[in-house]
Amino acid sequence: MTLTFERLAVDGQARLGRVSTPQGTISTPVFMPVATQGALKALPPEWAAESGAQALLANAYHLHLKPGEGLVESLGGLHKFMNWPGHIITDSGGYQVFSLPDRQITEEGARFRVGKKGQPELFTPELSMAIQRRLGADIIMAFDECVAYPTPYNYAKQAMERTLRWLERSRQAWQSEGTPEKQALFGIVQGSTFADLRKESALATAALNLPGIAVGGLSVGEGLEVMTEVLGYTMPYLPEDRPRYLMGVGLPEDVLAAVEAGVDMMDCVIPTKYARAGVVFTRVGRMRLDNAEYRKDKFPLDTACGCPACTHYSRAYLHHLFQAGEILGHMLASLHNVRFYMDLMTGAREAIAQGRFAAYKRDFLEVYQRRDKKNKRVG
Amino acid sequence: MTLTFERLAVDGQARLGRVSTPQGTISTPVFMPVATQGALKALPPEWAAESGAQALLANAYHLHLKPGEGLVESLGGLHKFMNWPGHIITDSGGYQVFSLPDRQITEEGARFRVGKKGQPELFTPELSMAIQRRLGADIIMAFDECVAYPTPYNYAKQAMERTLRWLERSRQAWQSEGTPEKQALFGIVQGSTFADLRKESALATAALNLPGIAVGGLSVGEGLEVMTEVLGYTMPYLPEDRPRYLMGVGLPEDVLAAVEAGVDMMDCVIPTKYARAGVVFTRVGRMRLDNAEYRKDKFPLDTACGCPACTHYSRAYLHHLFQAGEILGHMLASLHNVRFYMDLMTGAREAIAQGRFAAYKRDFLEVYQRRDKKNKRVG
Repeated sequence: MTLTFERLAVDGQARLGRVSTPQGTISTPVFMPVATQGALKALPPEWAAESGAQALLANAYHLHLKPGEGLVESLGGLHKFMNWPGHIITDSGGYQVFSLPDRQITEEGARFRVGKKGQPELFTPELSMAIQRRLGADIIMAFDECVAYPTPYNYAKQAMERTLRWLERSRQAWQSEGTPEKQALFGIVQGSTFADLRKESALATAALNLPGIAVGGLSVGEGLEVMTEVLGYTMPYLPEDRPRYLMGVGLPEDVLAAVEAGVDMMDCVIPTKYARAGVVFTRVGRMRLDNAEYRKDKFPLDTACGCPACTHYSRAYLHHLFQAGEILGHMLASLHNVRFYMDLMTGAREAIAQGRFAAYKRDFLEVYQRRDKKNKRVG
Repeated sequence: MTLTFERLAVDGQARLGRVSTPQGTISTPVFMPVATQGALKALPPEWAAESGAQALLANAYHLHLKPGEGLVESLGGLHKFMNWPGHIITDSGGYQVFSLPDRQITEEGARFRVGKKGQPELFTPELSMAIQRRLGADIIMAFDECVAYPTPYNYAKQAMERTLRWLERSRQAWQSEGTPEKQALFGIVQGSTFADLRKESALATAALNLPGIAVGGLSVGEGLEVMTEVLGYTMPYLPEDRPRYLMGVGLPEDVLAAVEAGVDMMDCVIPTKYARAGVVFTRVGRMRLDNAEYRKDKFPLDTACGCPACTHYSRAYLHHLFQAGEILGHMLASLHNVRFYMDLMTGAREAIAQGRFAAYKRDFLEVYQRRDKKNKRVG
């Protein structure tokens, strides 16, 4: 198998691990910033690497449309194209396709148009595998059907079952025409918020014995409580000796809850997306940089952070950059937020190694949420 | 005097020099990127420094409006606020104020509103000096009246004479309430495109024996030919032992023409502004990154450039970033363009030192303009 996973320590359900691939190793639990179109938004890859990022998530659907997987392949693959020496995971495009208006789903795949005048396109498990092979990611994802939240039981069941059939087609394409010696395929568990569907999906996905297994269909608006509930009745059916990847999660509190539930890998646009909206994460909670209270604030964004944005600039300067519409504000806030998430995960890994993850999570949230609660009262 | 200027070599009219201030030294001729609002656009200051930038131009008018000079002063001055260890020049705000619609000019100063509902503001030489003192730049500019191109002789004469009276008021404010031991004041020569006005302005400005002298009112649409003509009848009246700063210039061909005419310092938004529009400068001419010809181009932007953008990325990737609307495209193109200008100036300084500036300029333009000419034929 091209990807191996070692569990180095277990603390409750939380796991400290190491994913090894031909590209190198990833210390888990890991949070992966998102480079949808083959670029982190407002963040050069060197900055992400210096912040401690080990892996990025790119998207097969977006890169298929622009610039095309053939082009990326002819230029040496995605790592070289985007100058990223770490790991790359590509998502299959399932989530994106099902978010499109007027997409039609058949057993064959998903039909859609890009824009009102776009050519009709048909995404199938086989096409998704071919795209991801040519992009050259280290980990590729099966083509799944991700349903909205909430979804009626019958539709969730139908989509979950189709996802399993598409997983089998994804697996066959990966083995027969892909490069399983270079790329590890992960299956995706679906089933919305229904325990029996999640169980069935998890068991059937696990039975394929793939290098890793993902939980999809969460972080679609269900909230932390429901997410934790779903993880509670899904994780027990996932193999312990495979990395478990929770897709699209989340806020710091979601990330910690997922680690506590035994998740090893996560990705989310939140750190970079919030940064561009002028929201930064700090040990003492979220901070809206356009808030007038920071106008004269000479302190760094987070007094406990060692990132270059915190080392060299004041909150007042960042406030000014956002008031003045300067791109540098997006860059520095993104740099800080990614570093914040990386530090959060470093702390989580250390805590698991020392058997004190529950205390780490509690202590972090107590300080972090004090301010959020205050903000909620004020706002 | 807080600023000294040494001429290290002369080659025709071109001068190799060194400006020394309490902040350090600047090798001239120098090109200064523009950080209007206290930030280079899409470029962290570290990247500018690594590209060879020695000095930046910020703007008293913009920083007065946002975040206010008092705030910048209370946070330790502009160098600290924006994390720039090199030199900073602030422009007086004259150029910006006169670009506003409905501004009214009296002997006292310029009245204007910011936006239709803004409070009325009055900019005077004294206010401009006070703002620039509090911002804490190393070099500050007198408050001048910059006229549009073309301008009738009588108005150009009137504005030039008012600029001289305002220069005297700027100088008095600088000496009596400013920090002449820390900040060097430069006067600005005006007179539009009229030789006798330029001569009168140059001689009267030079007579004040200020640390440096600037040529304003160019790069306002007159074109390279007229600009060169104006420099031809202005430069002979500027003191040889003071740095000569040509404001707002320009394209690479303008910059080289100015150096040839004996200019020591220049600033312009072009490298960063063009970058954000997807236009990069290379040894073989300008390149529009959204052009389809770069879609599959595996070469770096400029094969002779050592900047990180050229070292790590292909034209195809930059093309993709602009097609995909990724901010990283702005960042990498800005990084490259600033480096291109810095390399152009390094080459110019070396050529002057070796007495071969004319050949340097000719050889550069021959390769650089071949492509521009071709593009003009095609486009």
